[in-house]
Amino acid sequence: MHPTNTSGMPFDDVRRLLHTLPGPDEFAVAAVRARNKELTKLPGSLGELEAVVEWLAAWQGSPTPAVRRPLVVVFAGNHGVATHGVSAYPQVVTRQMLDNFAAGGGAINQICATYDLGFKVFDLALDLPTGDITREPALDEKACVATLAFGMEAIAGGTDLLSLGEMGVGNTTVAAAIYTALYGGPASHWVGHGTFGHVGKGSGSKGRHAANGSGEGVARKVAVVEAALASHAGTLDDPLEVLRRLGGREVAAAAGAILAARLEHIPVLLDGYVVTAAAAILHALDPSSIDHCRAGHVSPDGAHAEVLERIGKKPLLSLGITLGEGTGAALAAGIVKAAAAAHSGMSTRTQAGVSGPV
Amino acid sequence: MHPTNTSGMPFDDVRRLLHTLPGPDEFAVAAVRARNKELTKLPGSLGELEAVVEWLAAWQGSPTPAVRRPLVVVFAGNHGVATHGVSAYPQVVTRQMLDNFAAGGGAINQICATYDLGFKVFDLALDLPTGDITREPALDEKACVATLAFGMEAIAGGTDLLSLGEMGVGNTTVAAAIYTALYGGPASHWVGHGTFGHVGKGSGSKGRHAANGSGEGVARKVAVVEAALASHAGTLDDPLEVLRRLGGREVAAAAGAILAARLEHIPVLLDGYVVTAAAAILHALDPSSIDHCRAGHVSPDGAHAEVLERIGKKPLLSLGITLGEGTGAALAAGIVKAAAAAHSGMSTRTQAGVSGPV
Repeated sequence: MHPTNTSGMPFDDVRRLLHTLPGPDEFAVAAVRARNKELTKLPGSLGELEAVVEWLAAWQGSPTPAVRRPLVVVFAGNHGVATHGVSAYPQVVTRQMLDNFAAGGGAINQICATYDLGFKVFDLALDLPTGDITREPALDEKACVATLAFGMEAIAGGTDLLSLGEMGVGNTTVAAAIYTALYGGPASHWVGHGTFGHVGKGSGSKGRHAANGSGEGVARKVAVVEAALASHAGTLDDPLEVLRRLGGREVAAAAGAILAARLEHIPVLLDGYVVTAAAAILHALDPSSIDHCRAGHVSPDGAHAEVLERIGKKPLLSLGITLGEGTGAALAAGIVKAAAAAHSGMSTRTQAGVSGPV
Repeated sequence: MHPTNTSGMPFDDVRRLLHTLPGPDEFAVAAVRARNKELTKLPGSLGELEAVVEWLAAWQGSPTPAVRRPLVVVFAGNHGVATHGVSAYPQVVTRQMLDNFAAGGGAINQICATYDLGFKVFDLALDLPTGDITREPALDEKACVATLAFGMEAIAGGTDLLSLGEMGVGNTTVAAAIYTALYGGPASHWVGHGTFGHVGKGSGSKGRHAANGSGEGVARKVAVVEAALASHAGTLDDPLEVLRRLGGREVAAAAGAILAARLEHIPVLLDGYVVTAAAAILHALDPSSIDHCRAGHVSPDGAHAEVLERIGKKPLLSLGITLGEGTGAALAAGIVKAAAAAHSGMSTRTQAGVSGPV
């Protein structure tokens, strides 16, 4: 019914690209480790901030890592699957929220302003929703690769720390479909509440709890993911097929941005459940392809924590955020900025005349 | 051997003060809750950031909470107990680190610069270490109350968000003694590795693990806490006696700052293991006296997580930091700034023309 695309070339280009990715700069890491031992604090006492600086050094390829032009990129897409009532909001909200971002009215605008982060939004053919994954592929191979390539352009203006976010009514269902395809198990295991009800409000709980009135909506999401998996059965062994058949344009673009960042020596902070799906696709193709990515924030919704464990990422923050828009990754960028500033700006014990251990 | 101080009056003044503390502004909380429902996001989707805004409103006493003049205050003290080898560093390091802060060379300087936080350091008679708690009270009642009062002056220049930090060679031993006195159990339960070795480097682990070569130092800390508890046995039922007998000047000053902040409608972010000891003393006197405080960061060292649970505080951050200096509370102030900016700066759905749920 849904034969695997056989034209071959475009996805092969992506696969070839995976073999050209640069590795970490171990000399840079050694340099920051050496400096770290000399600073006016006990080595290790800044915890994850020290690990963050090593990560920056490794992937910026610099013994003096810095965050001078941090950038938050939000990819926005619309989804054929939205017609099945998988979101509490109508599809028009994707466009409305982009207008809101342009006017500076979103949460992400304010977080970027607080930490002086650059901010760009990419509208990925919002007027052309992807195919309905319950009965057809979201994208054909050509469109999928074109979107990956478009995503690679997101960093064209330059940055030294990329935070990735997304916006798209229906895209938590798309992400759940991707995880179900990649990791197996029942669809219900991967479907979160999305817009049908927040979880753990003010509690930071990582559990998933039914919200009042959300049961029907969540049940529809589960049914849609089950239908999608059934419809594409037998074609999902290749992660790139998972991406084009079940994914959305924002997921494909985020995957492209992750790859482009690697090529350009830019560390990447992942946002929540949906952006992580892009990283999970790449991880399934080649686990080392996302070594330059860190998880900015773990969502209390869906099975995000489990996905992060599967792809080997420990989140910097756990603040109960489910909004998307790159908010979790942008907040994490604030932490990374402080980590880089501490490492580069602190005095050494010698400079400060501070005694060592007795 | 060590009769309870009976002059009475100064501590009675502190106790009287506890009865005059203002409560939360429920009208302000209701106002931010109402606005939160109108913003261009699903209510609850910013998780802890929304709880933070309610907390700001409650304790600033304002329906439009804001963080315009955040301040980090570090109290520094020296400890008679340092003569017992409870730190890897000589006592002179306390003064050297203050000089380092004055020159802008500390980690805390860089974090404050990153988030545009004001920064003040208070030298609490560094040349006059407190008494050796293994055989005498750290402070007499008059000195303890004077230090509390001095700490109250820390906010005299005004602020709308206070992050509290500390510096003092030997003060994790002092904090452990306070927790042992307040909560019981063996001293070893409350003693962390302090400067003898970091824990969970780069792992964010909350467990306590022996670091190579740290065993002897930790054993000395345990012995010192045991000796202190034995020496002051029978006099530690009153939390203010615990403070003056086992505490340090930075702990007393932090307790004063917490109380002054409450009176001046200033929310407080607590730093790590040592600052939390000041909050624990106040909590033991009256749990509601620290309702305006939030934990900025949970330390992986010592039993900080357990103390936070006992005093009912959930940390905003868990980044494996053990440095002190207010670094955890300052990083948390960066999160609080973003939370306040999101709440006040976002558009409402009506303003932005964003549709509601269908």
